[in-house]
Amino acid sequence: MPEIPVELYEKLKEILGNRMKTEEDFLEKYSRDETAELQGSKPGVVLFPISTEEVSQIIRLANEYMIPVTPRGAGTGLSGGAIPTPGGIVLSLEKMNKLIEFDEANLMITVEPGMITSEIQKIAEKYNLIYAGDPCSSESSTIGGNIAENAGGNKVLKYGPTGAHVYGLEVVLPTGEVTSFGGKMVKNVTGLDFVHLLVGSEGTLGIVTKITLRLMPKPRYSVALLAPFESVDAAISAVPALIKDAGVMPSSLEFMDNPSIKLACDFLNVSFPYSEAGAHLILEIEGNDKEAVADEYEKLGDICQREGALEVFVADNRNTREKLWKVRKAIAEALMVYSPVHCMEDVSVPTANIPALLKGARQIAKAHDLGTIAFGHAGDGNVHITFIKGKSSIEHWNTHLKTALANLYELTKNLGGCISGEHGIGLKRKKYLPIAVDQAQIDLIKGIKRVFDPNNILNPGKIIDV
Amino acid sequence: MPEIPVELYEKLKEILGNRMKTEEDFLEKYSRDETAELQGSKPGVVLFPISTEEVSQIIRLANEYMIPVTPRGAGTGLSGGAIPTPGGIVLSLEKMNKLIEFDEANLMITVEPGMITSEIQKIAEKYNLIYAGDPCSSESSTIGGNIAENAGGNKVLKYGPTGAHVYGLEVVLPTGEVTSFGGKMVKNVTGLDFVHLLVGSEGTLGIVTKITLRLMPKPRYSVALLAPFESVDAAISAVPALIKDAGVMPSSLEFMDNPSIKLACDFLNVSFPYSEAGAHLILEIEGNDKEAVADEYEKLGDICQREGALEVFVADNRNTREKLWKVRKAIAEALMVYSPVHCMEDVSVPTANIPALLKGARQIAKAHDLGTIAFGHAGDGNVHITFIKGKSSIEHWNTHLKTALANLYELTKNLGGCISGEHGIGLKRKKYLPIAVDQAQIDLIKGIKRVFDPNNILNPGKIIDV
Repeated sequence: MPEIPVELYEKLKEILGNRMKTEEDFLEKYSRDETAELQGSKPGVVLFPISTEEVSQIIRLANEYMIPVTPRGAGTGLSGGAIPTPGGIVLSLEKMNKLIEFDEANLMITVEPGMITSEIQKIAEKYNLIYAGDPCSSESSTIGGNIAENAGGNKVLKYGPTGAHVYGLEVVLPTGEVTSFGGKMVKNVTGLDFVHLLVGSEGTLGIVTKITLRLMPKPRYSVALLAPFESVDAAISAVPALIKDAGVMPSSLEFMDNPSIKLACDFLNVSFPYSEAGAHLILEIEGNDKEAVADEYEKLGDICQREGALEVFVADNRNTREKLWKVRKAIAEALMVYSPVHCMEDVSVPTANIPALLKGARQIAKAHDLGTIAFGHAGDGNVHITFIKGKSSIEHWNTHLKTALANLYELTKNLGGCISGEHGIGLKRKKYLPIAVDQAQIDLIKGIKRVFDPNNILNPGKIIDV
Repeated sequence: MPEIPVELYEKLKEILGNRMKTEEDFLEKYSRDETAELQGSKPGVVLFPISTEEVSQIIRLANEYMIPVTPRGAGTGLSGGAIPTPGGIVLSLEKMNKLIEFDEANLMITVEPGMITSEIQKIAEKYNLIYAGDPCSSESSTIGGNIAENAGGNKVLKYGPTGAHVYGLEVVLPTGEVTSFGGKMVKNVTGLDFVHLLVGSEGTLGIVTKITLRLMPKPRYSVALLAPFESVDAAISAVPALIKDAGVMPSSLEFMDNPSIKLACDFLNVSFPYSEAGAHLILEIEGNDKEAVADEYEKLGDICQREGALEVFVADNRNTREKLWKVRKAIAEALMVYSPVHCMEDVSVPTANIPALLKGARQIAKAHDLGTIAFGHAGDGNVHITFIKGKSSIEHWNTHLKTALANLYELTKNLGGCISGEHGIGLKRKKYLPIAVDQAQIDLIKGIKRVFDPNNILNPGKIIDV
């Protein structure tokens, strides 16, 4: 455990003044993120820089004194990526949350990393544009955190994950040097693609201090469909057909099993149609022409019915659509309240293998006598299978969860998938990484980490141990 | 200059039999790519492996004997990326050109790197899908080459460059080890994003031996617009408005100045409407609803007219559309024939800065008394400004081109752009890279190269010198 020398405290104080915090309540609050099953660990200090220059100064000092630095956005991460090295520095980017430039001519926006994602969505909307990144946590997570984990969310099927929208990054490297990757160019093959190497690198290769995102014209019409099915299997079996047969790409294709919906509805104190159905799909279709959108949702609705939907509800106004999404987006929070001992997974498989994944996951839960619920982004193959302790003892949970996770990851690998689609490896899945990727890749990750961060001071111990 | 020892020749012969070539005509043919102004350099041997296993064996041997290997697709590159180290090994992937799997359920296709890009487009079409990568060279370039340079082309505005479609890669690393990055997952944040680090790495980090691409539903309707303008300035000034004001994203927004069109029409022996106009824009709009597409192209056509188009022609059938595109796609080939001493550039700027770029480029050409033509992908900010020798002496050309290029790259940098949008750095732009990116990035590129390729045997001297 590193110990911050008094001399370093003093130098940091000089840079940050009262934006340096060592009070117990701060250290406690910044000891963890939202990963349910991980313990936190207390940092020695929490820093709130407000400029790239300050970030650079902090990193230079940390490097000199060899004290680990863990960058942090809103702390909503789900893989322990923001859990600090005990006694180290937490570098919170919450106060770097400003709009730097809205560039309407180039359809680009440049922001600081601490801006809440939904703020970006709102700014874009004002200009009849969209920022197409849409993680369920958009009201609380920061764009910097979204970039660290290459957050996915509800519109990946049509628009891709966070990284698909990121065109330029200003980065403070682990040496303290400041550089810029990419820019307002739609095309760029000048050197290596550092922008997308940084995206998803979980704060281990650099601290992002400015972000340029591409915006898109806002589709004039959005319609959501809600399709209840008798069982999980019936709902999930419809997913490959919806992707393959309709000839249109919905912007969203989400899945919620019965316990997920009940949790969310209880939490929000709302009702939901066909709340006793085994599972629901939510689809969203967007377009600029009302009739064209209607044709498309009819086609998707027909496929749902052909595949056994009990009914297909059409939500063609903002109010109804938002009600649906509110339930979908509340599941993770409801889990924290009603079932705090749980483990939310994030495996991602080829879409056609979703039925096999869900079936296998149920068998694993049953074999280990764990509860399980499932919800998520079925259309892109990323389902949040969640193990819950339920009524079993904590000892049983602690013993069986590890094996259940290893089994789930092996199943995923066998189905051609990966162990994290949008939450990241972080601390949580580090020891399971060798199930997912071979030794050559682990060696490459270590090698790249050493190139960027020779002293291993930036978020050490996340993804891999160097 | 490396010399291949007899012992190594014999070992290679054992692996490849008569797919190893040392005949003079082969060494000559494989000494260069299509970069007009670069001399070739003869390799010691040309190899045509047909399997990943053979590629791996070759690389292991090359590593043991420390002989440089230059991977090669169709040799249509425009930055000297496939020009071999003199006396080294050319590893041609032309015979690895098979379809491995068409996965209709997941909308994914897996192919070998030597497959011609248009073959992939044709396979997708059979299933009413599209492969959205569309470089002008699609009839001759290979998908492996497209990946090496992150090729762009005519549909980047809507669909992104080659990398946007690449989900999985099998790669032979410079040590000979075989690994797989990514897969048929739409979302993947399991370790670093090696797929997009390899895309655009110009054959310096690994040899791609299998490629998984995502396909998309084929839009049912495509309409092209052709808009002649009185001058280059008038045409190019319309581009930012077309991107910003229409509220729809065309799939293509191309630009050709008068000399480009004349060259291509002479070469093809065809006529073109308003062939005396200063410049033309081609737009393409796609969608699933005929009337919606019509509304969109009317909107774009209105903006063209508001911005000074002399007329707006609508090409709403395949035949007329293909005629237009044939002219656009023939420019590079026509240049090779009619103006072999030229230098085709590939700078990319924020779209709103396109008018300033073209104006500045003309001034640079004038100051150095060089000819210039311009065409390209105006909608995404990537214009192929091309210097031509014209009537000046070869000495004048050789002296002035270097400075003109440096001036163009500095102008591009000042306009927030990059020196290559889709052709790459290769040999051609290596010495200019420091204009585009800072020393920290050059050091990172070198560091990553060393991690992947400790003996510097894979396409050494491209992008940077280690």
